[in-house]
Amino acid sequence: MAEQVGVRNIRLTIEYDGGDFCGWQKQPEVRTVEGELVRALGGLLGGEPEIVTAARTDSGVHAIGQTVNFSSVSTMKPEEIENALNSILPPDVKVVGAFDVPLAFNARFDARKRTYRYEIATRPTSVWRMRRWYVRWDLDREAIRRAGYALLGKHDFSAYTCKDERRSPWIELKEFGVEDIEPQGLALVFAADRFLRRMVRMLTGTLIEVGRGKLQPDEPSDILSSGDRNRAGPCAPPQGLYLVGVEY
Amino acid sequence: MAEQVGVRNIRLTIEYDGGDFCGWQKQPEVRTVEGELVRALGGLLGGEPEIVTAARTDSGVHAIGQTVNFSSVSTMKPEEIENALNSILPPDVKVVGAFDVPLAFNARFDARKRTYRYEIATRPTSVWRMRRWYVRWDLDREAIRRAGYALLGKHDFSAYTCKDERRSPWIELKEFGVEDIEPQGLALVFAADRFLRRMVRMLTGTLIEVGRGKLQPDEPSDILSSGDRNRAGPCAPPQGLYLVGVEY
Repeated sequence: MAEQVGVRNIRLTIEYDGGDFCGWQKQPEVRTVEGELVRALGGLLGGEPEIVTAARTDSGVHAIGQTVNFSSVSTMKPEEIENALNSILPPDVKVVGAFDVPLAFNARFDARKRTYRYEIATRPTSVWRMRRWYVRWDLDREAIRRAGYALLGKHDFSAYTCKDERRSPWIELKEFGVEDIEPQGLALVFAADRFLRRMVRMLTGTLIEVGRGKLQPDEPSDILSSGDRNRAGPCAPPQGLYLVGVEY
Repeated sequence: MAEQVGVRNIRLTIEYDGGDFCGWQKQPEVRTVEGELVRALGGLLGGEPEIVTAARTDSGVHAIGQTVNFSSVSTMKPEEIENALNSILPPDVKVVGAFDVPLAFNARFDARKRTYRYEIATRPTSVWRMRRWYVRWDLDREAIRRAGYALLGKHDFSAYTCKDERRSPWIELKEFGVEDIEPQGLALVFAADRFLRRMVRMLTGTLIEVGRGKLQPDEPSDILSSGDRNRAGPCAPPQGLYLVGVEY
């Protein structure tokens, strides 16, 4: 296949505050991150570029390292594209990296690992009210750790997603961690080959039930085996969730 | 001196997002943190309580551990006062601790150490745009460290405050530190017996000049000795500054 002369494939790393967006995916009539990015790219490079995205985050979810790619015949340097886009984009979306990548690179299908982080405040909070989930209970971190480790590996995660998720439920959960965060709270870190809709938020809601003693540490993995989403805990709210990064 | 029967002294720890406040101190016609707190306390306990405060923060500055005290004849338990105040206060102010303290305790005059933290992002940011100062230059952390350490001890800090500051300029800077923060940035931590107006922001602005190579690491302490505020760097913007805590 002959390559089109001058066509480049450009990869961007994007940070956004999800609070005022109806999620990632472009839709008519509502404000989405992809919609803003397409508009800015169109303004800069012309046309309506098609963007390939590593992870379609939900309404209210933030990203520190969302990854996309698009093709272009522009002759601008990557850092010029980054600076120009940042001067056009609204303050709640920023490009934090731009690189030329091989034409075959696909931000969605080539991703090997996606990492999410869920932040929880264990005291009332004003500074982080749009960035963390405030949980009023004392949480047993060791119990959360044990419950989370028991989910590692490749499993059918149907119990931890929405009923209308159509993709294969077989996910390899590669990493799980619990970290203390200042001034008072914890972060749950999840890495997997890919994630199902609401999966991190349903896992988090269930692990918090373990942390507060409403579920035993072995129950989240029993729920996983049962495939019964009615036994899972509540879906944690979106404002505590961050797409941290994508590895290729 | 006979103590009034039933009078208690209550200490509160307060967290606030400074973004929508004209600073701490109560003033007519503008929204201030103290104004909101007095209103909430008045609603809960009656009257217009007089509040003693550890640190009067400026417009736009945040607090994680502001400390106040007030006297009351209420018979509510401290945790009941905390919960009731949090149900009245707006979302950008939260009480995160309430304690009975000796009647002699004074949040302002008994404070031995106040700690501030200034957060800087070294890549464009959306998630932290109201929480950090975005600085576009590469920063030499070792140079910042050396410059900051040279300011430790008791000195006349006139060069690092506003012209109209009327209090004694003799301050003991007890601690200084530089920490890396995620995803890309640094935090400067300052602890002193007390601080002058704009002092942390002027020190930060000056140390960033060192970090980017516009000043040498020994110049901030030369400026300190000279007492000449015209030689200090620019005042860093308020949204990166946090009052972390107060020790007694």
